[in-house]
Amino acid sequence: MTYQLHYWPTIQGRGEFVRLALEDAAAAYVDVARGDKDDGGGGERALMADLAKGDHPPFAPPYLVDGDRVIGQTANILLHLGPRHGLAPRDESGRLWVNQMQLTLADLVAEAHDVHHPVGMGLYYEDQKDEAARRAKEFRTQRIKKYLGWFETVLERAPKGGWLTGQHVTYADLSLFQAVEGLRYAFPHAMKRLEPKLDRVIAVRDAVAQRPNVKAYLASERRIPFSTEGIFRAYPELDPG
Amino acid sequence: MTYQLHYWPTIQGRGEFVRLALEDAAAAYVDVARGDKDDGGGGERALMADLAKGDHPPFAPPYLVDGDRVIGQTANILLHLGPRHGLAPRDESGRLWVNQMQLTLADLVAEAHDVHHPVGMGLYYEDQKDEAARRAKEFRTQRIKKYLGWFETVLERAPKGGWLTGQHVTYADLSLFQAVEGLRYAFPHAMKRLEPKLDRVIAVRDAVAQRPNVKAYLASERRIPFSTEGIFRAYPELDPG
Repeated sequence: MTYQLHYWPTIQGRGEFVRLALEDAAAAYVDVARGDKDDGGGGERALMADLAKGDHPPFAPPYLVDGDRVIGQTANILLHLGPRHGLAPRDESGRLWVNQMQLTLADLVAEAHDVHHPVGMGLYYEDQKDEAARRAKEFRTQRIKKYLGWFETVLERAPKGGWLTGQHVTYADLSLFQAVEGLRYAFPHAMKRLEPKLDRVIAVRDAVAQRPNVKAYLASERRIPFSTEGIFRAYPELDPG
Repeated sequence: MTYQLHYWPTIQGRGEFVRLALEDAAAAYVDVARGDKDDGGGGERALMADLAKGDHPPFAPPYLVDGDRVIGQTANILLHLGPRHGLAPRDESGRLWVNQMQLTLADLVAEAHDVHHPVGMGLYYEDQKDEAARRAKEFRTQRIKKYLGWFETVLERAPKGGWLTGQHVTYADLSLFQAVEGLRYAFPHAMKRLEPKLDRVIAVRDAVAQRPNVKAYLASERRIPFSTEGIFRAYPELDPG
């Protein structure tokens, strides 16, 4: 069964958390809005048209089509994919814990987006630069530290093995990699200051980057570069040195 | 088994979505930070001390203790409680769909909070009133409509029965009730304009309010009133008539 991933074709965004899980699992999937028609892809127009259909219409991209199921919300997609591809624990308690970590990463991602769009997502960044500068300060000096520090504590207390749940990688580890990458891109100075106290988090980031399927993916054209169109945005004025 | 709910003792906040599920299910629980010591409660200080403990430390309240499990993130707590109390579908596909709707409500709740704290959660509202006024406009005129309009569409396409999944109430219906109540409190003028096109959503709100256990709860002292300390805040300047 080939999955269909529906997401904006030109950014990593929230879709990237799903792409990383699919790539690590070597799952067959079509990135619908990116593919051409020969691949079963239909471009951005198809994305928006499909969004409105069906009994379980997603509120927004990303969403995944798996047979006759249409599944929206990033963490929910991963909750579905994890057990199918060995990226979640087998027991219910472990799965809830991984979901909890994923939802905490989702909160971090939402805050990272709010930094450059504090006044509203319908306005351009250029129209809310002053507000963004105010918001960025708290994010840079307090929030990143709080989130990544929490993951450092989780890793400190986890069973041996180096991953968030110990011996086995989960989709939350892949997502933590992506969060660190995004934060490094958008807030390089802040991250440089914070990373010395985040050894375990950075070790997860490094271990994910070395996983063969992830490594191949990152080196491929399928990996869209970070940009100031996505969730993590590098605006130097929001991350003074 | 008595659940322990850990949440701020003086606000509805995110904890209220959990309280509503526990109350509707007539589940035995202690609202730890609110109870006195005779009830097993320990006040706000105990809340913060407990937060930092254990192998699965929650990032923030609310969290639920169920036996030896500590479960954080509102949607994750409900994912755990739903099947145990008849508040989620029995099939996996149905459970994912309810989780998806709950996560969409979580996004709405986060945006409702950002309206009065666009620049940062560490600052007072009074120090970001101008930014809040800008953000409120988009929320009032576009975002509420987009979210609740989506739920209206979901209800329009759902199997007969009036609930989000048709014939049986789920925790997502209880949460939709809470979202409507919060929005009515914080944005009464905006909601008055929007509600004529939200018949099905309001019917769910009304049906939840009439459920015997919910009705008894809402009339009890256990229901904390809305206030300008919570997530939904009534600041008249953010909702001009």
